[in-house]
Amino acid sequence: NISVNTYESSIPFSQMKKNNDGLLPVVVQDYKTKEVLMVAYMNEEAYNKTVETGRMTYYSRSRSKLWLKGETSGHFQYVKSLTIDCDKDTLLARVRQVGPACHTGNPTCFFEETYKKPYDDTNPLTVLDEVYSVIMDRKEHPKE
Amino acid sequence: NISVNTYESSIPFSQMKKNNDGLLPVVVQDYKTKEVLMVAYMNEEAYNKTVETGRMTYYSRSRSKLWLKGETSGHFQYVKSLTIDCDKDTLLARVRQVGPACHTGNPTCFFEETYKKPYDDTNPLTVLDEVYSVIMDRKEHPKE
Repeated sequence: NISVNTYESSIPFSQMKKNNDGLLPVVVQDYKTKEVLMVAYMNEEAYNKTVETGRMTYYSRSRSKLWLKGETSGHFQYVKSLTIDCDKDTLLARVRQVGPACHTGNPTCFFEETYKKPYDDTNPLTVLDEVYSVIMDRKEHPKE
Repeated sequence: NISVNTYESSIPFSQMKKNNDGLLPVVVQDYKTKEVLMVAYMNEEAYNKTVETGRMTYYSRSRSKLWLKGETSGHFQYVKSLTIDCDKDTLLARVRQVGPACHTGNPTCFFEETYKKPYDDTNPLTVLDEVYSVIMDRKEHPKE
């Protein structure tokens, strides 16, 4: 006699704020490594499928249809948790990623750095600015 | 004689794909803890300001103007790196966050869980499905 879990969302999709395309952006994060893997979009059907099946399901904007991630590649994403943000207009999905998340074969879709803060940042104005902000904030909100 | 770093983007904003509002979504991640803090949007001016100043600057969709994060709260975000995704339509910013990222006082804007995979998942179909996917993927792409 096996107890089957019921998979339910604590907030219905209708209460989340959609963008101008009627879709909800979803940030996908590896639940173990915490790497950000990709961003995709959901409609109501995709959200409900994701919760029901435990596999990340999106709405493909290019193909204009439901997209079960991994359906052709086998690189499924198993949902660990879904979290909505304070504005209720963006979802964060923590997942177990099978294989690479990116269609290019990269582990994550974010692999092309456009800017990096120089390691040897010797500009005292820049360095002091950052430290000064932290000091000001700690003064107002002391930490033990 | 201090060498001042030049802050430049390796890809101009014009080569990134904007959404239907002409904006680029930005996922903001704490560079140390790897927590996803928030998602906001940039126009070209915001992107260039961010790279020039080293402080995350967005385009506020509600106020329809440039928004230096932390300007009123002191909760600045200092840029460590910017990474564009494979589609060039989403940016990942790794930052040093001063204070909480969220206007509610929460460390991150993602604090309301709408779904969590039950810890005591005893449904063998669900458990086997996840393990089976990993086995199939490892068979095709062996790891040493």
